[in-house]
Amino acid sequence: MNFNIALLAGDGIGPEVINEAVKVSDAIAKKFNHEITWTPALTGACAIDAVGVPYPDETHEICMAADAVLFGAIGHPKYDNDPSAPVRPEQGLLLMRKKLGLFANVRPTFTFPSLIDNSPLKRERIEGTDLVFLRELTGGIYFGEKGRRDGGETAFDNCVYTRAEVQRLAKKGFELAMTRSKKLCCVDKANVLETSRLWRETVQAMEKDYPEVTVSYEFVDAVAMRLVQWPNSYDVLITENLFGDILTDEASVISGSMGLMPSASVGEHTSLYEPIHGSYPQATGLNIANPLATILSAAMMFEDAFGLKDEAEAIRAVVNKSLEEGIVTEDLAAKGTKAYKTSEVGDWLVANL
Amino acid sequence: MNFNIALLAGDGIGPEVINEAVKVSDAIAKKFNHEITWTPALTGACAIDAVGVPYPDETHEICMAADAVLFGAIGHPKYDNDPSAPVRPEQGLLLMRKKLGLFANVRPTFTFPSLIDNSPLKRERIEGTDLVFLRELTGGIYFGEKGRRDGGETAFDNCVYTRAEVQRLAKKGFELAMTRSKKLCCVDKANVLETSRLWRETVQAMEKDYPEVTVSYEFVDAVAMRLVQWPNSYDVLITENLFGDILTDEASVISGSMGLMPSASVGEHTSLYEPIHGSYPQATGLNIANPLATILSAAMMFEDAFGLKDEAEAIRAVVNKSLEEGIVTEDLAAKGTKAYKTSEVGDWLVANL
Ligand SMILES: CC(C)[C@H](C(=O)O)[C@@H](O)C(=O)O
Ligand SMILES: CC(C)[C@H](C(=O)O)[C@@H](O)C(=O)O
Repeated sequence: MNFNIALLAGDGIGPEVINEAVKVSDAIAKKFNHEITWTPALTGACAIDAVGVPYPDETHEICMAADAVLFGAIGHPKYDNDPSAPVRPEQGLLLMRKKLGLFANVRPTFTFPSLIDNSPLKRERIEGTDLVFLRELTGGIYFGEKGRRDGGETAFDNCVYTRAEVQRLAKKGFELAMTRSKKLCCVDKANVLETSRLWRETVQAMEKDYPEVTVSYEFVDAVAMRLVQWPNSYDVLITENLFGDILTDEASVISGSMGLMPSASVGEHTSLYEPIHGSYPQATGLNIANPLATILSAAMMFEDAFGLKDEAEAIRAVVNKSLEEGIVTEDLAAKGTKAYKTSEVGDWLVANL
Repeated sequence: MNFNIALLAGDGIGPEVINEAVKVSDAIAKKFNHEITWTPALTGACAIDAVGVPYPDETHEICMAADAVLFGAIGHPKYDNDPSAPVRPEQGLLLMRKKLGLFANVRPTFTFPSLIDNSPLKRERIEGTDLVFLRELTGGIYFGEKGRRDGGETAFDNCVYTRAEVQRLAKKGFELAMTRSKKLCCVDKANVLETSRLWRETVQAMEKDYPEVTVSYEFVDAVAMRLVQWPNSYDVLITENLFGDILTDEASVISGSMGLMPSASVGEHTSLYEPIHGSYPQATGLNIANPLATILSAAMMFEDAFGLKDEAEAIRAVVNKSLEEGIVTEDLAAKGTKAYKTSEVGDWLVANL
């Protein structure tokens, strides 16, 4: 098969980890007789520097025309201390999500047996954890009307959801639950928020279409607790944009393998695959960043965007092997053992595929 | 001295834990030559059952006239599965906060050396944790305009903050930081929300009045991560209502002593003291609930509302002693050791004061 993949390396360590994912993807393609055309495009701080906007139209067209988007990370410290700067890398991210219609962010959290002791949580609390968040990504308070009144003294952000927005996200949740343990948790704050009550009533009304799925409804504050107490009691969780932002990041700590967690954003057009970590500016250019989250995001891309499960499994298998054999970057290297460079990890994976 | 305390036992185990806090408070008062007048009043599901509303005017008047409010817990399972029931216990809570002007919720999280191994987090991650959240409690999306449009198909919740609301909360944060390690963290989502940008610019402008305090600004998703990774890197944290709801509950898990965590809500009128745990309906009437969070809330009341530090310390000392000697309810009893009843723990504390 032939694939056209838009390559958005972004800022900071983005280009370095993307580079290794390209190497591994090309090796997999070769092995399974596929051909990949990579089309690089600008996004984030590097796009602001080059053309003045963080998500240029040209980039959007490249993404729309592609079979999938592989994304690195965006963000640069020069924007960090001034959240009201007129143009910011994050705006590019939000615009990209909106224009590509990426309404569902898929964030798995699972443990790697060989890394379980890296977790801040005790082994017995996390063993067997294998959950997936579906975070709504193009609605809610992120995209509602926002502004100032009273000469700047009052600020407001409007959170808005329509039933249709909840339905299309929840549908993905039910469908995902059907392929897993048939347990779905709807996370909301229905005891306080009207948007949450719409979420809850919409999901409740869909239950009859998925009689095999057991649905629970939990308040976001309770989930923030239980996620750290008994993460392995969850399977599929669906939630709105802002709650999802907070809870998926919290959940990413559980496995102790944050530098390894992949994600997908899917919706109306091309799907996008990216590591959950950020642009890690301090490490830029040092060839020390962990490329595995991006490589595992490429595995998700092979499986979900192209329907190529064997290819995805081959990537996951060689990643597991590298972890077991300790071919890892400094964030994972055990005390007194050798830390491999970003590119060395990629080379080893290609050689061992 | 003479104190008049409004006693809002509430629902579920509320009356049982409140009972023990009254016993201990009376014993402390006797020992230090104070006199307490307790004025019970209805709130929550029991108020709905009795008079049809969850925060009756009479209760409000009793609270306004009191020197402090001691609160148990509210909530009843008959309301749990129907978040859109016309009258709900939580409405009483929100109304009480608003009418009493309780704009700052003070939530300390600290470890008890004798209980540290109960935490889901590893000992080395949490040792020395001693942080305080100041959560804004009467503004934001909880109290903004909310409703439906398009025949119920669209729901909205408005999040609104004024500069004055941020200032009065932040002032308490700076002042608290001055009495502790002089480190203040402002938690927001200023890369996305206009209300967060108002928070950040307001706090930034106040920095010059507290030159000794080091202020950091962190995004709520990053804090949700770091709280579980390195909780002992935080000291005082200030944040808006919804973020505070989620993060304070997440933080309550850290110490492994959730059943022991007290809180205070302070503002324009009478201050209120309550355990952070809920009404634990399954345990109602069984005399098994842990009364220590409520008793430690009473200690906060002696110290903060009445300025009686020795009395507060005496309560904390005897609570520590009970923990060390294993005079604890079943939630804390080590395997194979005796679990004491709620009232037995209270009796022991009174006898050992
Ligand atoms: C950078 C920021 C706007 C973004 C978000 O809040 O969605 C990030 O935290 C994420 O989760 O992808
Ligand atoms: C019961 C609910 C309305 C309340 C809140 O969200 O404030 C509770 O979770 C709390 O934190 O006191």
